[in-house]
Amino acid sequence: MEPQGRPRRVTIVDVARHAQVSTTAVSKVLRNAYGASPEMRAKVRRAIDELGYRPNAGARGLRGQTYTIGVMLPDIRNPFFPEILDGVTTSLADTEYQVLLGPGCNGEKEEARVTEAMIDRGMDGIILVAPISSRGHMESVGTAVPTVVIGRHGASPAYDTVTDDDVEGAALVVGHLAGLGHRRIAHIEHHETDPTRLTEMPNARRADGYRRAMRNHGLEEWIDVVSTSYTQEGGYRGTKELLARPVRPTAVFAGADIVAMGVLEAVAEAGLSVPGDLSVAGYDNTTFAAFGPISLTSVDQAGRELGRNAVRLLLERIAERGRPSAQVTLSPTLVPRRSTTRPAK
Amino acid sequence: MEPQGRPRRVTIVDVARHAQVSTTAVSKVLRNAYGASPEMRAKVRRAIDELGYRPNAGARGLRGQTYTIGVMLPDIRNPFFPEILDGVTTSLADTEYQVLLGPGCNGEKEEARVTEAMIDRGMDGIILVAPISSRGHMESVGTAVPTVVIGRHGASPAYDTVTDDDVEGAALVVGHLAGLGHRRIAHIEHHETDPTRLTEMPNARRADGYRRAMRNHGLEEWIDVVSTSYTQEGGYRGTKELLARPVRPTAVFAGADIVAMGVLEAVAEAGLSVPGDLSVAGYDNTTFAAFGPISLTSVDQAGRELGRNAVRLLLERIAERGRPSAQVTLSPTLVPRRSTTRPAK
Repeated sequence: MEPQGRPRRVTIVDVARHAQVSTTAVSKVLRNAYGASPEMRAKVRRAIDELGYRPNAGARGLRGQTYTIGVMLPDIRNPFFPEILDGVTTSLADTEYQVLLGPGCNGEKEEARVTEAMIDRGMDGIILVAPISSRGHMESVGTAVPTVVIGRHGASPAYDTVTDDDVEGAALVVGHLAGLGHRRIAHIEHHETDPTRLTEMPNARRADGYRRAMRNHGLEEWIDVVSTSYTQEGGYRGTKELLARPVRPTAVFAGADIVAMGVLEAVAEAGLSVPGDLSVAGYDNTTFAAFGPISLTSVDQAGRELGRNAVRLLLERIAERGRPSAQVTLSPTLVPRRSTTRPAK
Repeated sequence: MEPQGRPRRVTIVDVARHAQVSTTAVSKVLRNAYGASPEMRAKVRRAIDELGYRPNAGARGLRGQTYTIGVMLPDIRNPFFPEILDGVTTSLADTEYQVLLGPGCNGEKEEARVTEAMIDRGMDGIILVAPISSRGHMESVGTAVPTVVIGRHGASPAYDTVTDDDVEGAALVVGHLAGLGHRRIAHIEHHETDPTRLTEMPNARRADGYRRAMRNHGLEEWIDVVSTSYTQEGGYRGTKELLARPVRPTAVFAGADIVAMGVLEAVAEAGLSVPGDLSVAGYDNTTFAAFGPISLTSVDQAGRELGRNAVRLLLERIAERGRPSAQVTLSPTLVPRRSTTRPAK
């Protein structure tokens, strides 16, 4: 007679027995790791379905896994982040991993709270998107749990990185505007003073790339950087400042599409037109940039590819915690649209 | 001599002893519940800081709490959801609860996966934002864990609801457009066939509210509903269809701001202007609607208030699981902007 009451939970061992394979093989299939043949996958999946097995935090699988990946997103309003997230969730769709997002990080303290919460809750791996935390904090996170950092330069043995070549991206924008005949090309950057972040943050690299590219095009005397923040408000305030110059720029390179939103807002408010009075370029190639009535020239840094690469590295790290750290750098492309044209006069 | 090795974790009992209060009092402060005086809060906070206490999943507090609230978001691209999320995170900022988001739900199967994952991971409470799941599924979630549903009408003893009066919101839009002199006012709705969802979903209520309001203004012969989806693509396709009519509408009421984005895109593509050729109104009053160059007339359903109310109800439910279910309905307001004006001719 079967015992009464709550049925015993199905474990990975039951699945292995039912599928007549090893528990290691089941674990491989659950992680979608290399080395599991299509036949093996089919066999294990069938056993999982037949037994109603659910890998989860309550009944942990092998090695105490919770099959949870934490993704820290700095700003849910920035339209670039859903692209990264799409790459992450698509890559994990065929695995047993569940993605949970930690939202609302806009400072080091908030980032520490979210990463601590993720570690406390036993997440198997963490993806940090454009973190502003100190390197020391990120290394302590990476030491506690397999971690991949998206959008932050600088190698560390404690975590892998996936970045875009931000210097190259800035050069594409300046080259495009200079090619149209602009000289007074201004840049709106995210204000940065911390020396480590000045070498590691994408925003700092873009500002650096802008300066270098201006010099390469013989435009150093027109270098004009306004320092605000990578938000719509930052773009708005920066543009107010630029429009108050005795001699106005003819083109603005906003460090992110969300900054360009603020630029467009301030330009419209001043009764000026884009691109007639001012050419505007952004960075990230978000759906906002592609939106017909906006049609913003932007840099495509392939957010989905960033997300996909981060997942690949993270699953490798989960499978082999001690492996040497990896740095993946992707190349950006320019997407010219109607917001940039030749300067007037 | 202190024992060597890993220090013992600080528990809620240690905090209570250190603060010289009861564990119930500590629990109240952690939950930010009513009945904890400012002095009590200060005392407990000090003890928490001094001992370095961290409530977490690894070392659970009283009653097995994980101090985690799961929020299921259907579409991270819809600019309305960050408003709700702001209300949620702001309300929880003074508590020990961590919010984790389950992203990427665009179907019943995906919603089931996310809610199961949240239950499995022992979340203390769940907020479902605009779920499309069957009532049966939501009730099973609400039975397993305290649950509040945002944006879904229909009372259930198994969960609380926070909704906006969508019939009233639609009436505000139709009243505004009729007041400007429009008669051929079309509506783009989210296609819905399930009978339960037809009575419970905000989109269905808005379509219903549109029809009722048109009749109330004596405009029944001009009722014109295009059935697509609450996405940018849905707005785009719906508008293509409307612009192909032998007699075009002079105004379009899009059921959501993200739908209005698609409307604006299709109108621009057709070489027409807003509001010159077509008045356009949305719903949700997102930052996109408020964005200067867009300036979209929209209905403000106070997303932050929805989020705040959901948290209040959820913390009550966590504290008292058996209490009768509550339904909160908020009243919308109209925010007229430049995208609507008198019809031409």
